[in-house]
Amino acid sequence: MGPHNNPVLVEVTRGDTVESVHHGAVAVVDDSGQVLESWGDVSFPVFPRSAIKPIQALPLIESGAADHFKLNDKRIALACASHSGEPHHVSEVLRWLKELGLSNGDLECGAHAPKHKKARERLRLAEESPRAVHNNCSGKHTGFLCTAVYMGDETAGYIEADHPAQVRVRETIAELIGQALDDATVAIDGCGIPTIAMPLQALAFGMARFGTGKGMDKQRAAAAERIRQAMVSEPVMVAGSDRFCTHVLRAAAGEVIVKTGAEGVFTAAVPGKRIGIALKIDDGHTRASEVATAALLRRFVEGKAFDYLNQICHKPVPNVVGRIVGEIRPAEDWLQ
Amino acid sequence: MGPHNNPVLVEVTRGDTVESVHHGAVAVVDDSGQVLESWGDVSFPVFPRSAIKPIQALPLIESGAADHFKLNDKRIALACASHSGEPHHVSEVLRWLKELGLSNGDLECGAHAPKHKKARERLRLAEESPRAVHNNCSGKHTGFLCTAVYMGDETAGYIEADHPAQVRVRETIAELIGQALDDATVAIDGCGIPTIAMPLQALAFGMARFGTGKGMDKQRAAAAERIRQAMVSEPVMVAGSDRFCTHVLRAAAGEVIVKTGAEGVFTAAVPGKRIGIALKIDDGHTRASEVATAALLRRFVEGKAFDYLNQICHKPVPNVVGRIVGEIRPAEDWLQ
Repeated sequence: MGPHNNPVLVEVTRGDTVESVHHGAVAVVDDSGQVLESWGDVSFPVFPRSAIKPIQALPLIESGAADHFKLNDKRIALACASHSGEPHHVSEVLRWLKELGLSNGDLECGAHAPKHKKARERLRLAEESPRAVHNNCSGKHTGFLCTAVYMGDETAGYIEADHPAQVRVRETIAELIGQALDDATVAIDGCGIPTIAMPLQALAFGMARFGTGKGMDKQRAAAAERIRQAMVSEPVMVAGSDRFCTHVLRAAAGEVIVKTGAEGVFTAAVPGKRIGIALKIDDGHTRASEVATAALLRRFVEGKAFDYLNQICHKPVPNVVGRIVGEIRPAEDWLQ
Repeated sequence: MGPHNNPVLVEVTRGDTVESVHHGAVAVVDDSGQVLESWGDVSFPVFPRSAIKPIQALPLIESGAADHFKLNDKRIALACASHSGEPHHVSEVLRWLKELGLSNGDLECGAHAPKHKKARERLRLAEESPRAVHNNCSGKHTGFLCTAVYMGDETAGYIEADHPAQVRVRETIAELIGQALDDATVAIDGCGIPTIAMPLQALAFGMARFGTGKGMDKQRAAAAERIRQAMVSEPVMVAGSDRFCTHVLRAAAGEVIVKTGAEGVFTAAVPGKRIGIALKIDDGHTRASEVATAALLRRFVEGKAFDYLNQICHKPVPNVVGRIVGEIRPAEDWLQ
């Protein structure tokens, strides 16, 4: 098995024909750990990448660091973000670092150009190189630094697996997914921190519990609730202008928490239905993970959120002159 | 069947683990039409996209247009190109258009920014918008226009399926692959011309014959040879600086013709072995189509070409700070 025999979740058409297909696996799990629905192999370990950021942010709240530094919703949302490097992301992260007595140079995530086109061009016109603060993970990293400062840890090396910041994250994840991670496969994420492989069904279970707080002590349940509220009240901070996660968080107004990750991973929680969702497109393509997530999530919501998700399920493919030559859509079979 | 059950051809690792996989199909066919090897479903029709450009260029030579306009190897190579929009591509296309009494405005391919980073930045610094001539297909389109001018066709509308330029291309393809295309599925390519679906085994057969001239009249065999020679003597014109096709064409020094296409398609011909190759990655990812092509092609060549192709079979995946965290490589099973 492994990821070799998963079903086609998304297809890309050209004219009347399917030109390309995207295989993948999906788990829908309730907050007791019961797999309600699944497609493909949901027991095969996958790297959750950035899709697990909301859970990685729990120690920031639970440690007391968030209260101590009086973090607003924007900063808590940034701690869960894969942001587009727009001015409102960058300036908030820089202010936060400054209040910690730190600066851009303390971030160990590396620099990449902003995902947001205008932000990228603004940098270029100013003849500035992208800095670590523009990295889509700079908010998460500042969250790690914030907890480290509060706990009195050395800040340098906070991305290493044996640094207390990462040990806390690892223990929190293990508790949420209800699985020891001592023997889990670990690799290095794009931003330098460890990424820990886990079955999609475990990741979905963790997200279900993140959504409802089931089986957690009061402090952790409150921390999860605070993060959910921050993501919902500051959806632009979680992703950015015209980004899928931002649109869904805003349109669903608290009914849905959703988070993208690299290599085609997505997570979601629908607290009102007590479910968590985890999904990976085998080939890692985001064009497919967004459409598959939309196809699944639209079954659990109504109103504006449904309308937006439904629209994403028919994503036009334009050619160079702008003529619509095909579409990206859910494959027919799996959601009937 | 269809593209749903093809094997994994390429895997992407992170640490010691496979993080993502790419399914696909490959046909290796000789110039008599015999399928020598295949993986996956090679009878399912796929859009060849730009991978069929060398065959699409045949009417430019066969019509007499190339001789009449005394086309050099650079222009013939450009007629088969998916170029990077570098200055040497753009200036040659513009000179060619001028000699035809035409200009950038006659190209119907639409404008997109050059693929080549420095060329893109040069445009930006000059505050110029990309023009149609920067489109990776502008050489192919100028080839269509060149033939149209020579044949006395109206040039406007040369991208439409019923324009003589496209009718000639369609008839030539049908003859090369040995299949009528009257009932074939047709869609619109990225650059606006028709793209005609055909089985990978037919496309590979066409490429095998393109490589050896087998079963063609003398005029067509000579035209195919002229195109092959132009691609080999001007490999930078076929793609660009630091591009896979250019490196392979240069290193193989005539032993191999290779051409990339959108959505994970690749074609190749190895004239000395009398074979043609056609490949499609189901999900359309170029990171996988290059590696799969390299894995297959390296079995047919030696020396510099083998060394380059072999190196492509272990493509490092760096993270943001440049640390190597994984690799893109051929899956183990299919080439044993």
